[in-house]
Amino acid sequence: MSTQDSDALNQRHAARMQRKKEVVDAKIAAATDERGVIVITTGNGKGKSSSGFGMVIRAMGHGMQTGVVQFVKGAFATGEELFLRQFAEQCQFHVMGEGYTWETQDRTRDIEKAVAAWDVARTLLSDPAIGLVLLDELNIALKYRYLDVAQVVADLQARPPMQHVVITGRGAPQELIDVADTVTDMAVVKHAFQQGIKAQRGVEL
Amino acid sequence: MSTQDSDALNQRHAARMQRKKEVVDAKIAAATDERGVIVITTGNGKGKSSSGFGMVIRAMGHGMQTGVVQFVKGAFATGEELFLRQFAEQCQFHVMGEGYTWETQDRTRDIEKAVAAWDVARTLLSDPAIGLVLLDELNIALKYRYLDVAQVVADLQARPPMQHVVITGRGAPQELIDVADTVTDMAVVKHAFQQGIKAQRGVEL
Repeated sequence: MSTQDSDALNQRHAARMQRKKEVVDAKIAAATDERGVIVITTGNGKGKSSSGFGMVIRAMGHGMQTGVVQFVKGAFATGEELFLRQFAEQCQFHVMGEGYTWETQDRTRDIEKAVAAWDVARTLLSDPAIGLVLLDELNIALKYRYLDVAQVVADLQARPPMQHVVITGRGAPQELIDVADTVTDMAVVKHAFQQGIKAQRGVEL
Repeated sequence: MSTQDSDALNQRHAARMQRKKEVVDAKIAAATDERGVIVITTGNGKGKSSSGFGMVIRAMGHGMQTGVVQFVKGAFATGEELFLRQFAEQCQFHVMGEGYTWETQDRTRDIEKAVAAWDVARTLLSDPAIGLVLLDELNIALKYRYLDVAQVVADLQARPPMQHVVITGRGAPQELIDVADTVTDMAVVKHAFQQGIKAQRGVEL
């Protein structure tokens, strides 16, 4: 590219970015509310729980207290559990479920576990000292109707006004989406698992 | 619900979950490869970077060494940076970019910064001691053609065989998707920002 062409390209870039900055700045200026938000990550793609854990460390980086309730426990401790257990004073970590529903195959017991998990969640949701609560795989418990969605919504809405809640799992029910502030649907474009690659530590576990 | 109805429901549940378990177990048995994977999180929805940081702490929980290169730096230190800087021995954290392209408005300088960031990334990608590398917002640098995608792909493919790489950012180029193992497209269902809520510490920052 000649110097002249390159200069022209750089100038067009600067002009385009200036217009973009005006649009972005106007949007930022319009967003003035500050309050606790409900974030939902749902869909079949990879990244729902890890996104929730990313927000937990974000909050911890700002000195906030956090709480985690895992509604579905895997066969062994995940990396995030091993890691966050080191921070008992800044992160209350509760692994409440026993496993995926197709592992337990016992609906009555699954319901008991989900109800017990929700009791722990409700304690976190009523504590204004906790800045962010992660309810990992809660959507699964709702999808199978192990918990009453109306009760879950009522408890979420009664939480301290500045508290953030992140809810993960496939199949988020519409009632929950309706009361959420930010909802992301994570779709699979491709997955290593489909290509015969085992779940990898640090990535899936 | 009568006890009889409830028993029947529980039995149907158990039978359905047993069939599901067979399907899941067969898939798990078929996935036997173990190697480093490339994970991409892209799309316009919230959760791309936080998902990457969730994988960083997953890996750290398993005792792995990690590296982070942020190709786009915000105006101030994010919670994840503040948090992970405490772990200098287990996480090399490099903030290389200066800001979004519409903030800098300077294409020549953006390119210099992107090239310098890729040099750091390449050092991490050639170190077999590092189990997981997060290249946060790399897709942005590729989208604006600040880096040569063919060179990026070549460097990724030359990395140690057990090293995982997570790449985030909107608009992942097809050349990168082609060589990735797991790709998630994160779509906005709704976003707090659209409802006038400021970016919140612990959630967006």
